[in-house]
Amino acid sequence: MDPPNRTPNGTPTRRSSAMPIVTIQQGPRDTELKRDLVKRVTDAFVDAYKIPAETVQVWIHEVPADSWGAAGTLTADK
Amino acid sequence: MDPPNRTPNGTPTRRSSAMPIVTIQQGPRDTELKRDLVKRVTDAFVDAYKIPAETVQVWIHEVPADSWGAAGTLTADK
Amino acid sequence: MDPPNRTPNGTPTRRSSAMPIVTIQQGPRDTELKRDLVKRVTDAFVDAYKIPAETVQVWIHEVPADSWGAAGTLTADK
Amino acid sequence: MDPPNRTPNGTPTRRSSAMPIVTIQQGPRDTELKRDLVKRVTDAFVDAYKIPAETVQVWIHEVPADSWGAAGTLTADK
Amino acid sequence: MDPPNRTPNGTPTRRSSAMPIVTIQQGPRDTELKRDLVKRVTDAFVDAYKIPAETVQVWIHEVPADSWGAAGTLTADK
Amino acid sequence: MDPPNRTPNGTPTRRSSAMPIVTIQQGPRDTELKRDLVKRVTDAFVDAYKIPAETVQVWIHEVPADSWGAAGTLTADK
Repeated sequence: MDPPNRTPNGTPTRRSSAMPIVTIQQGPRDTELKRDLVKRVTDAFVDAYKIPAETVQVWIHEVPADSWGAAGTLTADK
Repeated sequence: MDPPNRTPNGTPTRRSSAMPIVTIQQGPRDTELKRDLVKRVTDAFVDAYKIPAETVQVWIHEVPADSWGAAGTLTADK
Repeated sequence: MDPPNRTPNGTPTRRSSAMPIVTIQQGPRDTELKRDLVKRVTDAFVDAYKIPAETVQVWIHEVPADSWGAAGTLTADK
Repeated sequence: MDPPNRTPNGTPTRRSSAMPIVTIQQGPRDTELKRDLVKRVTDAFVDAYKIPAETVQVWIHEVPADSWGAAGTLTADK
Repeated sequence: MDPPNRTPNGTPTRRSSAMPIVTIQQGPRDTELKRDLVKRVTDAFVDAYKIPAETVQVWIHEVPADSWGAAGTLTADK
Repeated sequence: MDPPNRTPNGTPTRRSSAMPIVTIQQGPRDTELKRDLVKRVTDAFVDAYKIPAETVQVWIHEVPADSWGAAGTLTADK
């Protein structure tokens, strides 16, 4: 029913097999920054995989500074 | 120590090898809806895999509308 | 562009705000069992949230028995 | 060593508070495509958040067609 | 039905409210190393949260070197 | 540029190939407990995998009691 897409090497692929889910773990950021990021990350998939933007979903999980850390130390304590 | 369960084709399987974790990413919803969903998703595993309900865990991560999107656009902007 | 859906309490909601992603962590299982599970889990969302089945994605991550465990012991060693 | 970044409201922020983790769920693809994607997704963060590329990690989880689906149907069956 | 546990400050807590799920993303490693890790990570929860080891699940997702990277470069290319 | 690390069996390994990401799903807990946990979990990796603490990231996703459950019942209802 969907028109077939084509991968970069020319093989046709069905739209249903190209629905990447992107999950981002990060500290809290402003909506404006997230809006820009979601657009740019989606474009990255469109450009690299030649898939329609509508097939890409981006989910941002914002984690407060007292709930994540590197090197054994909470970010809140750095 | 646990009584063996049986898979649909009759092979015994130990309880310890049947503990699926379900993680759901969604927009925020009312507790009543989530209560119903957790019950129904758990039943889906019990019915499909023939495993005890107690072995199934469901985790819902609610993501606000300004933190996820499809087609390059935040859901908050749609 | 999409027809509005309605939540159980009658409020219209846009299709774009109802796209849950389900991620399942489990040991390896046969395709037939996964086929049944994906159908049943999707139905659970349709029934609990009154959203169209097409908005639900289910991703199963199968983890071998030497890569997960409970109580501090690999499942492969149980 | 790194120049401090500034958040939208002008507060300087340390490198340690800017380490996003990107996890992608997708069907299997060629290394060449993944190489291109990882570069482009990282650039998306550098451009949107003004953070150094070294702080961005991208993890791709490839899921076979018989382990994920939309609309209640395995991708393998479409 | 379960005996109540006690949090470090003495408040009783039910076993059902203390079931952390640990998901690890890493490159492939030997079973022996993973066995040791799962034990040590579980002990970390037992010691920090004073919860029974049986309530802790650890899932390791091994990602090949051509499917993850930092700084925009696949690990396979480093 | 980084000094090579060595795996337990003596093979040198580059730092870039040893950057595990730990994601924890749990109910809400006090900062003090999370601080202790992040340290102990990081130590678990240092001890089991012989990798530098700086390569380990820990992310805690706290899920409220009305958003997760086992055995088909929300933790909030137990």
